[in-house]
Amino acid sequence: MSGSIYGRLFQVSTWGESHGAAIGVVIDGCPAGLKLQESDIQAFLNRRKPGQSKYTTMRQETDQVEILSGIFEGYTTGTPISLMVRNQDQRSRDYSNIASVYRPGHADYTFTQKYGFRDYRGGGRSSGRETIGRVAAGAVASALLNELGIHICTYAKSIGPICVDESDYHYNEINENKLYMPNNEIAKHASEYLDKMLENSDSAGGIIECRVEGLPVGIGEPVFDKLDSCLAQAIFSIGAVKAFEIGDGFHVAELNGSTNNDAFYVKDNEIHKKTNHSGGVLGGMSDGDTLIFRTAIKPTPSIAQPQQTVTEDKKNTELVIKGRHDPIIVPRAVVVVESMAAITIADLLLQNMHSRLDGIKKFYDC
Amino acid sequence: MSGSIYGRLFQVSTWGESHGAAIGVVIDGCPAGLKLQESDIQAFLNRRKPGQSKYTTMRQETDQVEILSGIFEGYTTGTPISLMVRNQDQRSRDYSNIASVYRPGHADYTFTQKYGFRDYRGGGRSSGRETIGRVAAGAVASALLNELGIHICTYAKSIGPICVDESDYHYNEINENKLYMPNNEIAKHASEYLDKMLENSDSAGGIIECRVEGLPVGIGEPVFDKLDSCLAQAIFSIGAVKAFEIGDGFHVAELNGSTNNDAFYVKDNEIHKKTNHSGGVLGGMSDGDTLIFRTAIKPTPSIAQPQQTVTEDKKNTELVIKGRHDPIIVPRAVVVVESMAAITIADLLLQNMHSRLDGIKKFYDC
Amino acid sequence: MSGSIYGRLFQVSTWGESHGAAIGVVIDGCPAGLKLQESDIQAFLNRRKPGQSKYTTMRQETDQVEILSGIFEGYTTGTPISLMVRNQDQRSRDYSNIASVYRPGHADYTFTQKYGFRDYRGGGRSSGRETIGRVAAGAVASALLNELGIHICTYAKSIGPICVDESDYHYNEINENKLYMPNNEIAKHASEYLDKMLENSDSAGGIIECRVEGLPVGIGEPVFDKLDSCLAQAIFSIGAVKAFEIGDGFHVAELNGSTNNDAFYVKDNEIHKKTNHSGGVLGGMSDGDTLIFRTAIKPTPSIAQPQQTVTEDKKNTELVIKGRHDPIIVPRAVVVVESMAAITIADLLLQNMHSRLDGIKKFYDC
Amino acid sequence: MSGSIYGRLFQVSTWGESHGAAIGVVIDGCPAGLKLQESDIQAFLNRRKPGQSKYTTMRQETDQVEILSGIFEGYTTGTPISLMVRNQDQRSRDYSNIASVYRPGHADYTFTQKYGFRDYRGGGRSSGRETIGRVAAGAVASALLNELGIHICTYAKSIGPICVDESDYHYNEINENKLYMPNNEIAKHASEYLDKMLENSDSAGGIIECRVEGLPVGIGEPVFDKLDSCLAQAIFSIGAVKAFEIGDGFHVAELNGSTNNDAFYVKDNEIHKKTNHSGGVLGGMSDGDTLIFRTAIKPTPSIAQPQQTVTEDKKNTELVIKGRHDPIIVPRAVVVVESMAAITIADLLLQNMHSRLDGIKKFYDC
Repeated sequence: MSGSIYGRLFQVSTWGESHGAAIGVVIDGCPAGLKLQESDIQAFLNRRKPGQSKYTTMRQETDQVEILSGIFEGYTTGTPISLMVRNQDQRSRDYSNIASVYRPGHADYTFTQKYGFRDYRGGGRSSGRETIGRVAAGAVASALLNELGIHICTYAKSIGPICVDESDYHYNEINENKLYMPNNEIAKHASEYLDKMLENSDSAGGIIECRVEGLPVGIGEPVFDKLDSCLAQAIFSIGAVKAFEIGDGFHVAELNGSTNNDAFYVKDNEIHKKTNHSGGVLGGMSDGDTLIFRTAIKPTPSIAQPQQTVTEDKKNTELVIKGRHDPIIVPRAVVVVESMAAITIADLLLQNMHSRLDGIKKFYDC
Repeated sequence: MSGSIYGRLFQVSTWGESHGAAIGVVIDGCPAGLKLQESDIQAFLNRRKPGQSKYTTMRQETDQVEILSGIFEGYTTGTPISLMVRNQDQRSRDYSNIASVYRPGHADYTFTQKYGFRDYRGGGRSSGRETIGRVAAGAVASALLNELGIHICTYAKSIGPICVDESDYHYNEINENKLYMPNNEIAKHASEYLDKMLENSDSAGGIIECRVEGLPVGIGEPVFDKLDSCLAQAIFSIGAVKAFEIGDGFHVAELNGSTNNDAFYVKDNEIHKKTNHSGGVLGGMSDGDTLIFRTAIKPTPSIAQPQQTVTEDKKNTELVIKGRHDPIIVPRAVVVVESMAAITIADLLLQNMHSRLDGIKKFYDC
Repeated sequence: MSGSIYGRLFQVSTWGESHGAAIGVVIDGCPAGLKLQESDIQAFLNRRKPGQSKYTTMRQETDQVEILSGIFEGYTTGTPISLMVRNQDQRSRDYSNIASVYRPGHADYTFTQKYGFRDYRGGGRSSGRETIGRVAAGAVASALLNELGIHICTYAKSIGPICVDESDYHYNEINENKLYMPNNEIAKHASEYLDKMLENSDSAGGIIECRVEGLPVGIGEPVFDKLDSCLAQAIFSIGAVKAFEIGDGFHVAELNGSTNNDAFYVKDNEIHKKTNHSGGVLGGMSDGDTLIFRTAIKPTPSIAQPQQTVTEDKKNTELVIKGRHDPIIVPRAVVVVESMAAITIADLLLQNMHSRLDGIKKFYDC
Repeated sequence: MSGSIYGRLFQVSTWGESHGAAIGVVIDGCPAGLKLQESDIQAFLNRRKPGQSKYTTMRQETDQVEILSGIFEGYTTGTPISLMVRNQDQRSRDYSNIASVYRPGHADYTFTQKYGFRDYRGGGRSSGRETIGRVAAGAVASALLNELGIHICTYAKSIGPICVDESDYHYNEINENKLYMPNNEIAKHASEYLDKMLENSDSAGGIIECRVEGLPVGIGEPVFDKLDSCLAQAIFSIGAVKAFEIGDGFHVAELNGSTNNDAFYVKDNEIHKKTNHSGGVLGGMSDGDTLIFRTAIKPTPSIAQPQQTVTEDKKNTELVIKGRHDPIIVPRAVVVVESMAAITIADLLLQNMHSRLDGIKKFYDC
């Protein structure tokens, strides 16, 4: 791993800035023989595209992906897969008044301290557009997981203070509202909340939840590359994430062993758990149950309200951010969370293959 | 990184099981010239040792560390540092009734599925004793951080439902009570709660909080090795962790941009933040403020109450765990959290050194 | 590192096949502030381009590089640098008769066994065009090395049996003949030899030598990432390489300690070596002397002479390779060798920065 | 990989200096279920032990290995395997006159420049004793390879100018003479040559050759982790190595395509090569033939003859090395070469398992 390379066997190398020529990703380690075409990837990218609702940014991009390598006659060849999306609508003039100012809540300050200067246009590498590479790679990882009977379902559990309780989950409604909430009714209330945010030139955050079904038991590499460790890193690498939890999450701090342990039982010669407080991870490895995790996304920092801040040459100043900005990024982040989960799980599925000698001998016909 | 190797430049490779001959760690990449002796490491290990209070396990181990390599005349040489602690009190007989049973809440089941069998004695590699290697390495990392003016303070913020509010923090009291809580008075209440757990043959969890002072701005490697990403992975790799958050954490989901952004201002020609909702991390890099994170530890799974479970040959059974077990591991986990934070930060401090050409030219006198 | 990612801090991720849409590379870890423009990279690529002499392939490609990310206002930003070259002349029809045949000396057979099938057009990923990504990255690494006063000189020491002895080296003539030999006169003889190869529908190999000046002492990471180890891996990763040696190379096997050791002496308060049998590497680290290494390139496997081989469905057959093929690749490989050396040295220069505590404290102003 | 950690899945982390408390290795990623006991490892270590013949050093060490973790009831558990050998005979006084002097041909100078100071006793980390860790790990890797029907044969092909031609190979005689040459008769001549070296207070080098049988086709990860690339790095990481070649090696530079290509043919429905100029590697992957490589070891730098050198405070001086030193290390290096080959191949065998989707689906019963 490195700054822009994630994974050990299924490796993802992202590149590109908001206002550069293009944004993309190179996937190294995807096994050969996977059926893959541009539309598979485009479907994922369309879920993060700007301009989907009145609440997401008005930047006009078609975000058409191009497969540059790694596919032959419709199947992956086992060689690196290079995917690219050209930037089209990069209106630099929108950012001129912030070129020498550190926007609160953004990486401007830290980036400049680290590198000496920054591409100030649109957030540069810290821009939400950087997620294009992750999502494109996530589409490939998901195709691989589907072949192995593993499916991921991701949604906005809460937008601001409006939350969907588990008892109100209608999974089929996730794609029926523009906020990707698992309940159309509650999504309406969230909409009204966001209308207020737009009026107040403010923004909101939310919580995204993700469930993975079909994982074999034992996925994860103790002790440092545990399934939950790797997921935590992957999800936290998404901009604006400030929290991550598995299963009962922070609530475990108030439980007792008797209320938190998941009892085992056998049915039809298969082992099951009575409850799922663990969230599908035990000892850092998948336990056969649904993998459940949640992450909190902070409110979009770019708001039109006047803010106190400083200039690059250390003078106090007031900033009013102009231009087009998301009052909420949670809906667009849903597919990003799903993508990072897919990439992480794909990587660990590959790593798990060499855990036992008998499995290796069987693979090599010994 | 791999299953048992953590880090990119400051690399930590742990080994050892609960009932094996010894437990240890090899640290590769520690710079030469750091003053280091066994007592520095022993001080850290003593904070995790069993038998410290009536609430921690009664296993008798002196856990004396031996430095086997990497030090010459009191200073690190830049070569790998090998540290080892011999296991002494490994009473195997305590575990005989669970050899072929999967204990709820433990890694027995997942471990056996992954590897085909397991060392059932005392939890094997999943045992809490595995943290000896991490803590020994954490002592070395901390010594390095101290040389750079960076200090870490870690404590139990809550034990079960008993929580210390930030307004009641008395940092100097952390080492005055056996629960490492930042308030002796509240620690007493927590004690009473734990006495009840012991009576009920049950266990409790808690929340550990960690603050880091003195970090230079810009530490962290976007986009995948961000400071918060790496910390999340490091902390989640500790057994029993189920949640991790930075700054306002999950609470950000209910805030707005106007209430979550930290305004910048200049004072004495230095840039500061008015508030610290970010918890010291912005865009995945340190922002000069105190780094603050929290993690939730689940209740110890080993309780004496009867539990429903299954045998390795898939038969339903009831399990009563005998022997000596922690009703609470949070106090002993405090130094483990601190160690993983130290190791992660040390690694990122080294990685940051090659971010800018001018810094590299200065280093090489060009 | 992985199949298509090289390096630990200065990381190079290549992608692309001979007949895919494009070929490229992503460089992660290049420090910010390095002056860089397309012409710097184009200069390197032009040295490997096809169609330079009658001895190199007649494939028509302009190989124009495009910088897609990582540069802002003429300087690297510290973010990933994505470089791409579009394939133009991919005449698939030239390869139709070999689609289901394993060409001797090529990776067809091994590739198909490993991945189940292969992109048979033009050698796919095993094609010499894959080196475009390496050379583009090599240009960036070289720019970095130049900033640090390090310079690399690479040339063809021998073509087939025609060899230039060290006493006949005229470094200034390297770029004056199309074979990149350090002696125009001897290059003429080599030309005549190659004319004969063309007549015989045969091919030749050769030896490339490389000298690096200006390396600081101590570059290389014992014990596994030694300077010579990393160079050996980097050079051997180039297709057609079958040997690598440093300094006196294989000849050391016949020397004695008294004739192989390089004595030290002091002059003008600086330490020097009387001789350079070590080739500039001692204990796996640079010793301040010129770094000298050599590599042997095998003859191009694609020859027009009839060859005995097999089909993919295991039938014996005779193969006559049609189309355009290099009778010699050594001249075009010179810049590839130079590029891999530059990338490797850049990576180790960055890794060396954290060897000593005093250097780290100085960097962080402690 | 890092300075002291080698490998991507089968990872080897060595530690220890010549005069430290002990020397050892941690192996992470060895699959569970491999039968392993101390005697398996001891057999390998005994081949490198000092004091085997009058030509090897007189340092008295029993080099008894202790398994500290990773084994349970005679089988590997899939957890890290820690192996250790205590240093016993560390006569520091033998090195007092060289504490502040840079010995020619040794790493004293480069090590001190890199780290600021060095453990001068016995070569510290650069000592030949460092290979103990590699050889112990090599024993484990070899046990794994044997399970997969892969066998390695290594020997001294030449000692100084005394060389065994391939036509004179008697493999069964390798372990019958103390020089590990594949011909007792020629080994006698080599002995006489070494007697002369001892008389002259000089030393000699040699060439080690290695053959691997039974490799499946397709092992190696293009483009950077090719089989030959990884072997080159692994072998070159051994101290005193100055050259490495595969198959026809440097000789390919004088061959033509027609004489260097290996023709394919089918027999009994299996694909074979008529010749083996490739040395068993094609396109960076194993081609089913015997893998053959050679490496050159330079003469031991520590000779008793007076040598010109410098002191640490930059004064010219003459050095006479006292104490016990190998006039030849080639015989003891044979098992080190074999070990590094075993480790590299084991790692690549594991990495190869995820190349194809059908193999992955089969593994997961999909």
